[in-house]
Amino acid sequence: MDLPPAFDRYRPELEEELRVVIGNKSSPLYNMMRYHLGWVDEQGNPQEGMGGKLLRPTLCLLACETVGGDWRAALPAAAALELVHNFSLIHDDIQDESEERRHRLTLWRRWGKPQAINAGDAMYALSRLALYRLRERGVPDGKVLHVAHILDEACLRLCEGQYLDLSYEDRLDIDVDDYLEMIEGKAAALIECSLHIGALLGTENQSLIGHFQRFGKMLGLAYQIRDDVLGIWGKKKAHDTDIKKRKKTFPVIYALGRAEGKQREKLLTIYQKGISEEGEVFEVIKALDSLGPQKYAQKMAEHYYLGSLEELRAMNLPAQAEDELRMIAAFFVERDY
Amino acid sequence: MDLPPAFDRYRPELEEELRVVIGNKSSPLYNMMRYHLGWVDEQGNPQEGMGGKLLRPTLCLLACETVGGDWRAALPAAAALELVHNFSLIHDDIQDESEERRHRLTLWRRWGKPQAINAGDAMYALSRLALYRLRERGVPDGKVLHVAHILDEACLRLCEGQYLDLSYEDRLDIDVDDYLEMIEGKAAALIECSLHIGALLGTENQSLIGHFQRFGKMLGLAYQIRDDVLGIWGKKKAHDTDIKKRKKTFPVIYALGRAEGKQREKLLTIYQKGISEEGEVFEVIKALDSLGPQKYAQKMAEHYYLGSLEELRAMNLPAQAEDELRMIAAFFVERDY
Repeated sequence: MDLPPAFDRYRPELEEELRVVIGNKSSPLYNMMRYHLGWVDEQGNPQEGMGGKLLRPTLCLLACETVGGDWRAALPAAAALELVHNFSLIHDDIQDESEERRHRLTLWRRWGKPQAINAGDAMYALSRLALYRLRERGVPDGKVLHVAHILDEACLRLCEGQYLDLSYEDRLDIDVDDYLEMIEGKAAALIECSLHIGALLGTENQSLIGHFQRFGKMLGLAYQIRDDVLGIWGKKKAHDTDIKKRKKTFPVIYALGRAEGKQREKLLTIYQKGISEEGEVFEVIKALDSLGPQKYAQKMAEHYYLGSLEELRAMNLPAQAEDELRMIAAFFVERDY
Repeated sequence: MDLPPAFDRYRPELEEELRVVIGNKSSPLYNMMRYHLGWVDEQGNPQEGMGGKLLRPTLCLLACETVGGDWRAALPAAAALELVHNFSLIHDDIQDESEERRHRLTLWRRWGKPQAINAGDAMYALSRLALYRLRERGVPDGKVLHVAHILDEACLRLCEGQYLDLSYEDRLDIDVDDYLEMIEGKAAALIECSLHIGALLGTENQSLIGHFQRFGKMLGLAYQIRDDVLGIWGKKKAHDTDIKKRKKTFPVIYALGRAEGKQREKLLTIYQKGISEEGEVFEVIKALDSLGPQKYAQKMAEHYYLGSLEELRAMNLPAQAEDELRMIAAFFVERDY
């Protein structure tokens, strides 16, 4: 399934806004950030077509436009969301010791962990400076502060979720509720906040803003469950990273809860002692395949997808706008990358 | 030299503000932050008297009071400054692999690097949430945003300085100018910003605010040079950490620039290949001692101290207020901890 058309609509101006925020400083620190964003190669030479999907900022701008706001006024918030997302990816890659992202070396693999931690911190500071540019677009100070508050609350929830994710690695007793608590923070908080902020910048209608916030939360949960499936069976992912790190992704939690007898024993043994060999990764995937978590995960993702459609209907939007948001929600649960 | 009395004046309310911001969540993530701040031990049991000097927030509140403002209204900004400082310490300890801070294990040594990176990130998010509480104290929205902007600019400069500090480790060609560029970001930016923000929250007098900002910058530079001296010859520091990590602190840069003949060769050889043995640390300290960088460093610190006094005089403050700030400036260059 392709990226819905809304993602093309805002891209040029969004990229321009991001480039203005990163600025033209020549310090290698800034080149590290440009590299992570996919704009330059390891040597700092310009590179095309390596950027991310710009998912969160696109959702923000779309929400703003859909409620009748001027999406260009929301560009600084959209840029801030993308920078927060990328700051978290930089630190995430260090924490998980992931070696590749978008088919290139991760920041820490190329420049070492100390400098990569620092580049993430710098990007976090830049995200806030990006946000304050809302003032220059005529957004009233009170609203800018409200948006900043929502964003920082989301960042804190992101850290709370990340704490759980890391702490689950050594645990075998994680159930679906634990999992949902974790992804509500780690993944859904920022997507929820993207739609929340976008709507807030476009309207004063509190009930409509509330629907967008909850729509975002549902989408965020669906997105992450789909991501977990793609993390093991997807075409473009490194299939074994999640398993080797003993990440308690949805399929794994499901399998650990469902397996019986010898299969259960084998899985527990592998997860207890840590996974070091390729053969063990294969064992885990074989076990997962036989238990069918893919189907169950997809059912869960669809559950949240349906929840998001309920919020969508309650918004009472013009048909065209509703269709566009429905298409995006569908993309979240059906995408294969 | 003891901590000037101003440090006692604000401490109770400052600590209270910090406690409200951290809140009472029981998640271990929050206990990690409480541990770093010196409030609890490794098991999460309350501990007394382990907190830091609260230097930056005290400077902020003092600046606010000195220009005639209500220092209590500035408490949220002061708390934010302390949290930013501590977030940077948490990440710094990981980057430098420092094992102890204030005679206790560092966060990463106790909970591992991934969780420590995350706890630092959470504290960064909390620092912003702390700041927005200025609104509840009646500070106008426009001013809150101005303060937030100054704080984020300082954070970015802090990262720029940290980039340089880390990149200097492998270099032997660092001179005093490189060093000053590094500490302007890494150390002085946050101290400068503390006084700048404090004054800004207490007055509309732009010229006075400017003097406080520059006063802060001078103090920050003096503070760091003194810190470098204490890092090697101080009583309470781990004497060999800076040397083992080949940190280009002021005495080392001075010595590398001044040493001649065989001594220079020996120093360069040790710094080129990395320092692994105690004997080499001893060699470096012996070389430093013979070249007298301690005296020169103190002269540099005093140069900035005198610069700060010039700014101080230009403020035209009542005698008592001027005396208090002069005492603090003196503490910055004479302190032995």
